[in-house]
Amino acid sequence: MASINKACVIGSGLIGRCWAALFARAGLEVRLFDIDEAQVTTALDAIRDIIAELHDNDLLRDQTVDEVLQRVSGSSNLGDAVGDADYVQECVPEVLDIKRKVFEQLDEVVKDSCILASSTSCIAPSKFTHDLKHSANCIVAHPVNPPHYIPVVEVVPAPWTSELTIETTRAFQLRLGQAPVVLRKEVNGFIINRLQYALLMEAWRLVEDGVATPQDVDTAVSQGLGLRWSFMGPFETIDLNAPGGVVDYCNRYGDTISAVCREQEDTRAMKGTATAATVHAAMRQDVPEDQLKSGARRAWRDRRLAALAVHKHKQAQVEQAVDDK
Amino acid sequence: MASINKACVIGSGLIGRCWAALFARAGLEVRLFDIDEAQVTTALDAIRDIIAELHDNDLLRDQTVDEVLQRVSGSSNLGDAVGDADYVQECVPEVLDIKRKVFEQLDEVVKDSCILASSTSCIAPSKFTHDLKHSANCIVAHPVNPPHYIPVVEVVPAPWTSELTIETTRAFQLRLGQAPVVLRKEVNGFIINRLQYALLMEAWRLVEDGVATPQDVDTAVSQGLGLRWSFMGPFETIDLNAPGGVVDYCNRYGDTISAVCREQEDTRAMKGTATAATVHAAMRQDVPEDQLKSGARRAWRDRRLAALAVHKHKQAQVEQAVDDK
Repeated sequence: MASINKACVIGSGLIGRCWAALFARAGLEVRLFDIDEAQVTTALDAIRDIIAELHDNDLLRDQTVDEVLQRVSGSSNLGDAVGDADYVQECVPEVLDIKRKVFEQLDEVVKDSCILASSTSCIAPSKFTHDLKHSANCIVAHPVNPPHYIPVVEVVPAPWTSELTIETTRAFQLRLGQAPVVLRKEVNGFIINRLQYALLMEAWRLVEDGVATPQDVDTAVSQGLGLRWSFMGPFETIDLNAPGGVVDYCNRYGDTISAVCREQEDTRAMKGTATAATVHAAMRQDVPEDQLKSGARRAWRDRRLAALAVHKHKQAQVEQAVDDK
Repeated sequence: MASINKACVIGSGLIGRCWAALFARAGLEVRLFDIDEAQVTTALDAIRDIIAELHDNDLLRDQTVDEVLQRVSGSSNLGDAVGDADYVQECVPEVLDIKRKVFEQLDEVVKDSCILASSTSCIAPSKFTHDLKHSANCIVAHPVNPPHYIPVVEVVPAPWTSELTIETTRAFQLRLGQAPVVLRKEVNGFIINRLQYALLMEAWRLVEDGVATPQDVDTAVSQGLGLRWSFMGPFETIDLNAPGGVVDYCNRYGDTISAVCREQEDTRAMKGTATAATVHAAMRQDVPEDQLKSGARRAWRDRRLAALAVHKHKQAQVEQAVDDK
């Protein structure tokens, strides 16, 4: 497997900045590209802030801020930015034509072994990576915001993506400290959003059908289901909920679950509905308009995610210490 | 609203013990009932362990273990156990006929203002609380195991449950430190399991259709979606994911989400399926049969839940300190 030592980030927005920080933390030389020189300068300052925050949270792998930061530089010239990069991460707007154009341009300047990864959350890679010289090197690596506190990355190959590209990308994400999940087929919404939408739509029905208030549905997750899910997935959850594991669980409860799920085959419209207005109004009771608009509540969310990342990091260390005994 | 000072727990199994500890922590006098005298004695020892663990985790509200423990006593005589209790929590096996019989017996011995709450996770209260003198006082208060670390409690009234009973139960759960959610209608699975099943069934389809491995689906939750959900629900999540909140989010993404959810109207069988065997085998790679059977992995889960409860408690204190400034 080709080793990845130099990375290039295309696009200097929020996600691009986060990727740059993660790459630099892992010891890579990073070049950040944006058409607009001023944007590059702004982004480099923001990257320093991310790296400093990781340092404050003891998540910089025992490096100093300057050690990590000096690995990052910027350029508004695509060829210079890409250079002989081993890995390029595209972070441009979620517009198919823009993705196509960027991948065509990258195709012309990258070295033959370079992996071309897109950060897209929703566009299948087959839609913008066909007919390229480096099609086999193209893949989606979709992070969740903010990726330095939410490790999962969806790795989505196109039908023509090589196994080497898939495996190299997966291994690279692990090296970054991320948690890659590999899709073996392109599906709408990939897997994270499909899982999220399934839960959201049931939440929606419960409110629309007058079973519970939006706040109480949120509480059922934030003070209930979400606690286990913050460190174990739905399958391990059921595995531990019957003496004999998953097969035993399915024998005991499978028919009941399938029956409830048949009741859930009832998709509702969300856009422009009365339920959207109801849920929106309910959210404004706890988070008034000004806190939403000012970004204060988003800042709260990100503080909580950072604190949880630190908590999980410490838990992993505790478990490692136990295993080592 | 009637004040609740004396509580009785019917059934000395795991959930009964946890309720007794929570009641005692909140300052109530608690009597634990079991037909079998020996079971009562065993349970009282286990309750001491729960209270001691809460103390070790700084979750005993600045009380000593003995202060809290001395509030708990046991009895194998139903009339003595109930006495003049203000609140009875039933924790007998999930068998309708047993629930009916217990509620009939309780109906004969409780004082008229006593609330009769069932811990059932799945039986609608209308099925075992009709034709009782105290029907209006009957309700479900379904905890999630272990309730001292997972606060949510589903409060499910029967059609004849009084508003006073609903509101008193809700307020009482808050006093215990739990997070009550009130169902306004009986639905199969209540709301926690309905939400859980919706996610689980999509996880199931992703594996059955060869999109991702069981481990990767679990990772998508435990290293992704579950992080936010450990402190905010699905509605607040979308509220913060569009500049203008829920209505804006639905305008931007609602049609896409509804389209994906229509693809999910495709319930699969779980019991006795090849997919059950596949998922089971995948789980055994990380947690071998002996760790499952010995309970070692369940103990790990409970340690993580305890650590997360402590983490969340501290986060709440931090936020309170910020609010107080």
